[in-house]
Amino acid sequence: MTETKFDMLKELWEEKNLTALKRFLYEENPVDIAEMLSEFEEAEPKSLPTLYRLLSKEAAAEVFVEFDGDTAERLIGALSDKELAETLSEMFYDDAADLIEEMPANVVKRILKNTSPADRKEINKLLKFPDGSAGSIMTTEFVSLQKEMTVGQALDHIRKVALDKETVYTCYVTDETRYLEGFVTALVLLTSPTEKTVGELMESNIISAATSDDREEVARTLTKYDFLALPVVDSENRLVGIVTVDDAIDVIQEETEEDFSVMAAITPTEVPYLKTPVRTIFKSRIPWLLLLMFTATFTGMIISSFEDALSAKVVLSVFIPMLMGTGGNCGSQSSITVIRSLSLGEIKLSDTLKILLKEFRVAFACSVCLAVFEFIKMMTLDRVLLSADIDVLVALTVSLTLIATVFFAKTVGAALPLLASKLKLDPAVMASPFITTLVDTASLFIYFSVAKVVLGI
Amino acid sequence: MTETKFDMLKELWEEKNLTALKRFLYEENPVDIAEMLSEFEEAEPKSLPTLYRLLSKEAAAEVFVEFDGDTAERLIGALSDKELAETLSEMFYDDAADLIEEMPANVVKRILKNTSPADRKEINKLLKFPDGSAGSIMTTEFVSLQKEMTVGQALDHIRKVALDKETVYTCYVTDETRYLEGFVTALVLLTSPTEKTVGELMESNIISAATSDDREEVARTLTKYDFLALPVVDSENRLVGIVTVDDAIDVIQEETEEDFSVMAAITPTEVPYLKTPVRTIFKSRIPWLLLLMFTATFTGMIISSFEDALSAKVVLSVFIPMLMGTGGNCGSQSSITVIRSLSLGEIKLSDTLKILLKEFRVAFACSVCLAVFEFIKMMTLDRVLLSADIDVLVALTVSLTLIATVFFAKTVGAALPLLASKLKLDPAVMASPFITTLVDTASLFIYFSVAKVVLGI
Repeated sequence: MTETKFDMLKELWEEKNLTALKRFLYEENPVDIAEMLSEFEEAEPKSLPTLYRLLSKEAAAEVFVEFDGDTAERLIGALSDKELAETLSEMFYDDAADLIEEMPANVVKRILKNTSPADRKEINKLLKFPDGSAGSIMTTEFVSLQKEMTVGQALDHIRKVALDKETVYTCYVTDETRYLEGFVTALVLLTSPTEKTVGELMESNIISAATSDDREEVARTLTKYDFLALPVVDSENRLVGIVTVDDAIDVIQEETEEDFSVMAAITPTEVPYLKTPVRTIFKSRIPWLLLLMFTATFTGMIISSFEDALSAKVVLSVFIPMLMGTGGNCGSQSSITVIRSLSLGEIKLSDTLKILLKEFRVAFACSVCLAVFEFIKMMTLDRVLLSADIDVLVALTVSLTLIATVFFAKTVGAALPLLASKLKLDPAVMASPFITTLVDTASLFIYFSVAKVVLGI
Repeated sequence: MTETKFDMLKELWEEKNLTALKRFLYEENPVDIAEMLSEFEEAEPKSLPTLYRLLSKEAAAEVFVEFDGDTAERLIGALSDKELAETLSEMFYDDAADLIEEMPANVVKRILKNTSPADRKEINKLLKFPDGSAGSIMTTEFVSLQKEMTVGQALDHIRKVALDKETVYTCYVTDETRYLEGFVTALVLLTSPTEKTVGELMESNIISAATSDDREEVARTLTKYDFLALPVVDSENRLVGIVTVDDAIDVIQEETEEDFSVMAAITPTEVPYLKTPVRTIFKSRIPWLLLLMFTATFTGMIISSFEDALSAKVVLSVFIPMLMGTGGNCGSQSSITVIRSLSLGEIKLSDTLKILLKEFRVAFACSVCLAVFEFIKMMTLDRVLLSADIDVLVALTVSLTLIATVFFAKTVGAALPLLASKLKLDPAVMASPFITTLVDTASLFIYFSVAKVVLGI
């Protein structure tokens, strides 16, 4: 929050001017209020429940869902059963379900105790869907209309139920068995004559998701078509929920950050960087560093097994970093491209052959280009800058190794994420660090093998 | 598209059954139609304009904006001036502006010639905003209301103008000088008594963007507050446009893919992987590979300048890949974390000290842990697997180097993206490949320097 707002809050808090505090908070957006309250709690540990109680019932629930897990847990601990029940009754079912999934068992018990039986039933419906599925991110609070309704009746119905629904801008048309027949937007209803029926106006080419669909795929579909909401149906095409655009955006952002983390060899955390304790950052990074350091034993083994060759021609060691670096970069280029394309749904497993062929052709062009460049550089610049021991045979060794390494790196870089996807693993785990380790090992092996042949050592 | 739909299209095309083709296309979503038409064009090069002409005027414009630049250019070339004018008149101004920015000069000339003077004026307004600004992604087609209007009047106004507006779900309240006073959602209008005035109902705590704001920041603000649209104002707080959620999502996705590309040392392309020619992929990758290979000269220089030390103790070469790899991984962890946090707006430049301090503490924990692990591993496993030449002093050399390298990698990894941001460069250019090269060079230098002291070589 801005300095001014923080100071204002602090001043009013110190004056104990609750009326002014209430008015101050009333003016703000719930997202900002949540940010302010969390930040102010750090300065004034006891302020959270007091300030929270100043919010209107509706605003309170909106603010509540913006808190991170720890803050929410602390607040629940400070609220009375009655206050908790009030907040919960104002929350959307999907938000309540998300909250329950984050809280420890004793808090969950208190939450469920303070939820009305009807609400509990709806929340439980959502909780039964597996993590990461469309069912787990949908809400059951949608507007459903019947074909026979006139536009006037539909608008009256929307007016009546609007406040309990997550969106009224897309309304779904179902029959008495909840079978999804079509949808109609609020825009169409607003701009059509009141006597027309919903059945006449509805769009019946429906794009929907199944409850078991992967949540990322659902989010991508919604954004691909620029929808504000996507209906989720069961195996009999009965409407069971909707995913709204704001939730889809959250899913995409979470999945993106996960991909970035995995590529950086970090266990993903959901807390913003500055709020993450050093201990947590350490724990999210060290296992990967240890694992990758351990796997480097293989590169060590290769070098030590070729120690004689290396002693015979020490100049070879000069090019080890370059070969490993270039191999690693080639591998990252292919693997990150394939990982992102898979993630965006641009490529499918059935495209494997096409992809490998493409990478093969790119590898051909890149490897020849790099090898020629390196050969010329070695015979000119490197002989001056690095070592007078560089001769045509050494340059040839390095260039041939480059060609083989680039081919290996690009092919493996593209193939491993596809293989991971085939095995139903996250393709991102095959990202740069792992591929780099593999490519490092391979490039060293190729290097010394080529050297033995070309240089006869 | 699915096999069945492709086959159906093919069959109807071969039968020349235009009526059936028209009906077939009528049933589909514009996004899908665009995909089908592009894909079918590959099989039947002349099909595009014919199929396009079967679409209704409104559908045609919606399909048109989904085409990639090349397809759009080919289609424009095949359309008559009258057909082009019709499509353009149905397009939203921001889409038309985007199209113009993508087309070559001669096509732009034809587009502008076939646009009505009024439309041209609006499009030109959008074109004058610099690339990457809020102005460049906004549209001027919003609903504006006046405070004095009753709900009934406001709804009547919306009904009248709705079809030409990009969204009617958030309406903006302005005075006669276009000064932005507040906003009101369609939901509020629908659920309020018709005699209330807009002024009574509007929300006056407005979150808005300036035309010159960075487009990514604007998109992040919109999604942070779960808005469907965000108003864009000029320096006098006069409303000049809105950014809608679908455009915000596009911006976030483009920026994300750019970050991924840059981290993979690839020049970003906007075309899906499978549609990108090998030549284009090659061109987007080879400059970075060449550049990074060239910079590897530094690592080579360091090794060659310590060649005597290396000859005296060949076993040192065994740990070069591990040291470089661990340094690179540590650097990526920090740099990717900082790059993403900057990108998400979680950290600001003013947090630099906090961040460096945090990375320093993480580096301390990681380096000690890695060094101890490596020391033990070297004195046990490595002596068996790698070389009998490993003694306490060699293990000490490697462990001390690890500590220094990890500190260097983590600090530089965190600092460089912040520096780039300070210099108004994209922090992502400081991503792994560059930091790896720098860390490689540093780690080798540290390694041999430590070796000289510890081993006395």
